[in-house]
Amino acid sequence: MPEIYLDNSATTRPYPEVVDFTGKVAGQSYGNPSSMHEKGLEAERFSEEARRQVALFFGGKEKEIIFTSGGTESNNLAIKGAALRNRRRGSHLITSQVEHPSVLNCFRFLEEEAGFAVTYLPVNEQGLIDPEELREAAGPETILVSIMHVNNEIGTIQPLEKIGPLLKKNNPNLLFHVDAVQSFARLPIKVKNWQADMVSCSSHKVHGPRGTGSLWVKEGTLLQPLFHGGGQEYEMRPGTENVSAIAGFGMAARITGENQGQKAEALKNTKLHFYRKLMESGIEAYVNGPEPEESACHIINLSFPGLPSEMLLHSLEAKGVYASAGSACHSRKPEPSHILQALGLKKDRLDSALRFSFSCYNNERDAEEAARITAETVKELHRIVK
Amino acid sequence: MPEIYLDNSATTRPYPEVVDFTGKVAGQSYGNPSSMHEKGLEAERFSEEARRQVALFFGGKEKEIIFTSGGTESNNLAIKGAALRNRRRGSHLITSQVEHPSVLNCFRFLEEEAGFAVTYLPVNEQGLIDPEELREAAGPETILVSIMHVNNEIGTIQPLEKIGPLLKKNNPNLLFHVDAVQSFARLPIKVKNWQADMVSCSSHKVHGPRGTGSLWVKEGTLLQPLFHGGGQEYEMRPGTENVSAIAGFGMAARITGENQGQKAEALKNTKLHFYRKLMESGIEAYVNGPEPEESACHIINLSFPGLPSEMLLHSLEAKGVYASAGSACHSRKPEPSHILQALGLKKDRLDSALRFSFSCYNNERDAEEAARITAETVKELHRIVK
Repeated sequence: MPEIYLDNSATTRPYPEVVDFTGKVAGQSYGNPSSMHEKGLEAERFSEEARRQVALFFGGKEKEIIFTSGGTESNNLAIKGAALRNRRRGSHLITSQVEHPSVLNCFRFLEEEAGFAVTYLPVNEQGLIDPEELREAAGPETILVSIMHVNNEIGTIQPLEKIGPLLKKNNPNLLFHVDAVQSFARLPIKVKNWQADMVSCSSHKVHGPRGTGSLWVKEGTLLQPLFHGGGQEYEMRPGTENVSAIAGFGMAARITGENQGQKAEALKNTKLHFYRKLMESGIEAYVNGPEPEESACHIINLSFPGLPSEMLLHSLEAKGVYASAGSACHSRKPEPSHILQALGLKKDRLDSALRFSFSCYNNERDAEEAARITAETVKELHRIVK
Repeated sequence: MPEIYLDNSATTRPYPEVVDFTGKVAGQSYGNPSSMHEKGLEAERFSEEARRQVALFFGGKEKEIIFTSGGTESNNLAIKGAALRNRRRGSHLITSQVEHPSVLNCFRFLEEEAGFAVTYLPVNEQGLIDPEELREAAGPETILVSIMHVNNEIGTIQPLEKIGPLLKKNNPNLLFHVDAVQSFARLPIKVKNWQADMVSCSSHKVHGPRGTGSLWVKEGTLLQPLFHGGGQEYEMRPGTENVSAIAGFGMAARITGENQGQKAEALKNTKLHFYRKLMESGIEAYVNGPEPEESACHIINLSFPGLPSEMLLHSLEAKGVYASAGSACHSRKPEPSHILQALGLKKDRLDSALRFSFSCYNNERDAEEAARITAETVKELHRIVK
């Protein structure tokens, strides 16, 4: 049986050299970077090298990188940290209806428990927000806008180069946060063009260790920390640094980011090959969100009307193809995806959606095999369900 | 040159089998536990086994264990989470003056930014709080008390078996949190006798991976989460689980906890051997905090009047002995320790204090060698300083 892992938006297989490196740092350089002796400094050199590597994606200033425990923490630190720290300047916040739960639930918290007003922007059928609508929603009271770069379920790429300048033109004091967990090291992160103030990333989405990630915070941006404690991470994120995972994250980011354009092209080709082969099979399937050529290189979301997502997911799994029904981050809640709902999809599309997400570990043959197995399984299930 | 690592209260060397296991889980079981397919379930089995192992220290209920990114996060979740969630019941909090910065700075935040009143209990020369004073400080308005088990700088063991029942007798609704980062798996954690509601632990203090830890939360205790996001960790701590580190933490806790009594005895003997050999050398040195026989098995804090801590630290380091000047968690701030200040020590004692903290990787020969090198270095430095 093949094992074709197409759930790379949930998590990726770490590079073997990253696993080795992480283990070596863990076993040998076990000092606490806050310790003043050589064992501490040795550990610190690894986290500082990683900081340098991650900073390169954001213009190169090491002190603008805060290491966290992952994407969820980065999003929480950015959104709650910026809103709570800057509440004297205004109480209005803006985000979209298709953000990750770690973004949306921060805004819900700020709305329900902290007295903020939140605008949740709708999206069109492709999952895109309308920059004009965003411009109209933003006023002098708006202190924070958070818009993701690449959607985790349908791969929509938001036009951040339009959005950022539009926002800042009207209100230069407003803070702009971007959840780039799905795009970091895979697509260019243009913080200058986006006029972004904060960008969230996760290590395990780019073949790095779980348990770490980063928040890029533009120099001078004020946040209320989530944690209080020692002075680590410029007093923005106290706690003993997860040095070995951070070191592995730096390495994974560097490897993933090398020849970014070529790699993105190859990933897109793999995805498109899967899609074309699947459609050639004659089964009934519909793309949710943007056309596969338009969406991020590694994500495609498809509905197979008449077949419940979970049934298809488990049937595919039994044949060695791992996909996702809704985002992994819903933690097994069998609810229809809020993202697909925001697209205005009808029930039969919502209930039968699967996400296939690719990585460099999937080649064209995997894509073809996965398409063949998926088509075969869809046909089998239709016979059973009927 | 020997390498004698005596900074085990800052962080410990991970067990080689834990490093191997963590790497194996990272490389092979890379699924996201929230994914509904077998790769996700495979990962989840590792985190659930770790949950079972950690829960055994607290009475065995898996659902009472929340995995976090470490001790700092556990303390923040417990203290800010309990205070903010229960503020309708009262606004008074109690802690001691000798807590870890990740505890103290949570209370300072709650005091300065969230409208709570905080009592910071003083300690005696041994670093002990007075249970009677605590009883008097606690009133019907008190909703949370946080007292550490073992002090991280001087090894004082607080009389939690007296404190907890005393608190609960007067006010059964009050929540009692214990920072057990220094004692977990080394000393018995008697949550029932302590009448505790929450206990914080850290993995890297018990020879486990950095970047994880846990908060034991007694069933029914309500907290406001630090993070908002997916539904992970019973909705108390969203974010993709750091599965490999969690798996390693479970294993490290199990190994450290095996034959706990015997190991604590051996550790104490190593520490006492170091202390006796040092004192036999005729140098001037004073124990800070409790007598070495009375303090936690692995910690001793000594002052060498006339020799600045940092000078002695670096001279020892040059000879392969790694100690600590103040807690590592101050992240290199050259301030006198707030813990030693709370003991009422004079300036010459404050300025010349070093902590030596032991682990199972230190044997009696190391202790003797470290004592010899320390004595020799103290004598040399006294010649230079004069």
